[in-house]
Amino acid sequence: MEISEGNYVLLFHTSRKKWLVKVEKEKKMHTHIGIIDLSAIIGMQYGSYIMTTLEKKIYLIEPTIHDFIMKSERSTQIIYPKDLGFIAIRTGIQNGSRVLEIGTGSGALTTFLASIVKPNGHVFTYDINPRFMKIAQKNLIKANIDQYVTMHEYDIHNGISLTEMDVAIVDLGDPWTVVEQVYASLKGSGAFLSICPTMNQVEKTAVTLKENNFVDIECVELLIRNIEAREGMSRPSMRMIGHTTYLVFARKIITLKDN
Amino acid sequence: MEISEGNYVLLFHTSRKKWLVKVEKEKKMHTHIGIIDLSAIIGMQYGSYIMTTLEKKIYLIEPTIHDFIMKSERSTQIIYPKDLGFIAIRTGIQNGSRVLEIGTGSGALTTFLASIVKPNGHVFTYDINPRFMKIAQKNLIKANIDQYVTMHEYDIHNGISLTEMDVAIVDLGDPWTVVEQVYASLKGSGAFLSICPTMNQVEKTAVTLKENNFVDIECVELLIRNIEAREGMSRPSMRMIGHTTYLVFARKIITLKDN
Amino acid sequence: MEISEGNYVLLFHTSRKKWLVKVEKEKKMHTHIGIIDLSAIIGMQYGSYIMTTLEKKIYLIEPTIHDFIMKSERSTQIIYPKDLGFIAIRTGIQNGSRVLEIGTGSGALTTFLASIVKPNGHVFTYDINPRFMKIAQKNLIKANIDQYVTMHEYDIHNGISLTEMDVAIVDLGDPWTVVEQVYASLKGSGAFLSICPTMNQVEKTAVTLKENNFVDIECVELLIRNIEAREGMSRPSMRMIGHTTYLVFARKIITLKDN
Amino acid sequence: MEISEGNYVLLFHTSRKKWLVKVEKEKKMHTHIGIIDLSAIIGMQYGSYIMTTLEKKIYLIEPTIHDFIMKSERSTQIIYPKDLGFIAIRTGIQNGSRVLEIGTGSGALTTFLASIVKPNGHVFTYDINPRFMKIAQKNLIKANIDQYVTMHEYDIHNGISLTEMDVAIVDLGDPWTVVEQVYASLKGSGAFLSICPTMNQVEKTAVTLKENNFVDIECVELLIRNIEAREGMSRPSMRMIGHTTYLVFARKIITLKDN
Repeated sequence: MEISEGNYVLLFHTSRKKWLVKVEKEKKMHTHIGIIDLSAIIGMQYGSYIMTTLEKKIYLIEPTIHDFIMKSERSTQIIYPKDLGFIAIRTGIQNGSRVLEIGTGSGALTTFLASIVKPNGHVFTYDINPRFMKIAQKNLIKANIDQYVTMHEYDIHNGISLTEMDVAIVDLGDPWTVVEQVYASLKGSGAFLSICPTMNQVEKTAVTLKENNFVDIECVELLIRNIEAREGMSRPSMRMIGHTTYLVFARKIITLKDN
Repeated sequence: MEISEGNYVLLFHTSRKKWLVKVEKEKKMHTHIGIIDLSAIIGMQYGSYIMTTLEKKIYLIEPTIHDFIMKSERSTQIIYPKDLGFIAIRTGIQNGSRVLEIGTGSGALTTFLASIVKPNGHVFTYDINPRFMKIAQKNLIKANIDQYVTMHEYDIHNGISLTEMDVAIVDLGDPWTVVEQVYASLKGSGAFLSICPTMNQVEKTAVTLKENNFVDIECVELLIRNIEAREGMSRPSMRMIGHTTYLVFARKIITLKDN
Repeated sequence: MEISEGNYVLLFHTSRKKWLVKVEKEKKMHTHIGIIDLSAIIGMQYGSYIMTTLEKKIYLIEPTIHDFIMKSERSTQIIYPKDLGFIAIRTGIQNGSRVLEIGTGSGALTTFLASIVKPNGHVFTYDINPRFMKIAQKNLIKANIDQYVTMHEYDIHNGISLTEMDVAIVDLGDPWTVVEQVYASLKGSGAFLSICPTMNQVEKTAVTLKENNFVDIECVELLIRNIEAREGMSRPSMRMIGHTTYLVFARKIITLKDN
Repeated sequence: MEISEGNYVLLFHTSRKKWLVKVEKEKKMHTHIGIIDLSAIIGMQYGSYIMTTLEKKIYLIEPTIHDFIMKSERSTQIIYPKDLGFIAIRTGIQNGSRVLEIGTGSGALTTFLASIVKPNGHVFTYDINPRFMKIAQKNLIKANIDQYVTMHEYDIHNGISLTEMDVAIVDLGDPWTVVEQVYASLKGSGAFLSICPTMNQVEKTAVTLKENNFVDIECVELLIRNIEAREGMSRPSMRMIGHTTYLVFARKIITLKDN
């Protein structure tokens, strides 16, 4: 595929030296491995390479949603791909899903959710912080996915009128405080997921879910380990991320009264 | 949402006692917690419950793609949701993607891939074992996703005519033997992923990729740990799965000759 | 070394079929791989083997303290070797150490501690449950290590007269309730360790230690994973223990008043 | 206990700011949190504290073998306490054990082994690198444990005259090349342990042991994770060590010929 003006490209030198940029005429990038002429990229193929002024190879990689998330402008803690992928499959989010997100943050999770529900689904996201909303919007536009998202600057503790949501994702410091509102907005057997960095959050959220007509409550954590594969000397990497967050999943059930 | 005849339902009693069934008239399920009358479910809401003949509650949960995979008929080793979710996000598979799968197996991975690429994308899957092809087809039909998949009983070592694939997924015992064929079928900067249960496979595959114009080679393993959340006594579960598979990712680059 | 009557032997067939027995005349062991004649072992070398009546090889292995712990009669939860080894090295227990143990349980930890402090050190262990004390005593005698241990059936919440202990090990459900008593019994810069299966115990204990003149507070968990090494197909085992316990370490400091 | 001239002290400010020093008259330590007057420490109690010239508290902790190892002068890769503790308990090393060590390195492992076998046991250690031997000797003297160790600058591939060893510890890049020599030096049912950072080493060593009359072959890896315990917000640390080494254990059996 040919690279056009306005496209995003992942400039890949090594795993540790890579940049996600928008291709524009007259634009040059200054790096410590030389200057990269972005005009020269227009018309080239993804997968091919150019040289920096210091004769270093830069491969032109078509960015995936993974690259956009990893390189998004952050002002809150990022949610890692290992967690995102599992969230999607465990809650069953897919093209067409209607997803409620409470706690927009920098929009990294929103971006990912929108990329899965499009083109037939939609993400409704809430936050009370106008500064985060701005950053999130910028990131959504950068990933060209904003038309699948509706953003609300609103405190969901005051109640919510959305109903029949397929999935609700809660990324707040006190997820147990919105269980009632989430329950009201979900369809029967709809999926709940909350991001819980601490064990205290896990405990309070799981206990509250159990008391509020949710079943199939499952709390997990995912660990990812890199492997250094070299001929005759393969082994896991010395360093790894020890913890990002716990995840608490559940499904809504309907009580007799509502039935 | 109302349950109709022909729908699938996850009959949920507890995390360890749940069944995925197709709703049919005159059908009864015999379990050690009593008989479940499936006719009685028709017309009920997802999220509501019925009682067994032994007065046990059974919640009627709408199954997600996750449930179909975990409950699919297996004749080869299953690929776990933790790995599936990460594969999707790391390779950038989404609605519209054209995916090559080498090694169909029981179709669990195929089912998942198809659920992500639909409705605009497609999965082309190859296997040399006719028995597996039959099982896979059955599972694809059960998940109502077969129209997004083309199956070939063919040994890809003999070459492949597909080109411009977005992503290639290799699930063979010797993934390094098809790196050349995969290279030919991928678009520029297309993504490669191979399922490698052993460290020896990781090493050989990574070394071969490096020698064959792939970059951004990343080998990882994912671990999932369940947390038992109880008031005042929360802790990880005693038992966990210690290993499923390593994953080897890469991106295709175009050499000068091909450029 | 020659095996004598009264010695313990680990009868090893495979990793999953092994027995720890005392060698006695006229004693025969009935197993599903045949009968083992223990009289016949007397006079044989450790490392050699005998055959069962079903012609299966049984290797005669000299048991280590590890084997005694893994095969000890349990009535409380066992503490795993991975944790025991780290406890010893992190607290600095060695030959000559004076160790206070609160919560004797089945004596598995006591056995291990005594095996390290002997012949010049001593373990003082407390429990309020007479039934546990009996089991612990039996296990200590079996491991031939009871002369290095003094057992007390006593509730340490009532105060303790021991002083200048090198190390204190707490294995109670509420370790934070004895921090004051432990402080009084430890020497300056003496080491504290508590076994905490739940995160709630970790939190309360660490907070209490911080408020009661302990420093170098370190909370850890250890995970052990088995590797299946086979030519050309080496990989971690599918199953592993996901959690045994967290460990909370600290060192006592002396405040100005006491100094 | 009172601190005397010539004693070692762990100067503890925080978990990340601590120093292991020998107490000497007229000695001052310059740090970025102020100057520490070591003369002033003489006669003080372990567990008490002094102030730096910048009014920062420094606790005087009695160093354990753990502290000596973590702070030892390294020129080769260190072996972590999590691994050391497990090695000791799994091989059964204790006071009185006769231990063969192949690959002295910087002596960190030697120091630890000697601290366990003393006063009645002994460590016989071999290395072919005279520079390492010097560093190891320095570390052994610093830990005041050199009288329990005999060092040999010798290539064990040429054969070894030691016999009836209780335990053999191999820390070489190619442990499988000395299995024959180790076998000859071990007593019947004696324990073998090799440090194997890569999976390739694990595989070759385990396969060679199996072919050379060893049983109870067990390959493991240990992971340690730190927990940040804070009131109401306890969680594992973000960073952790992902890999240090695999460990391969085995027991020697005696074949009919030798029996």
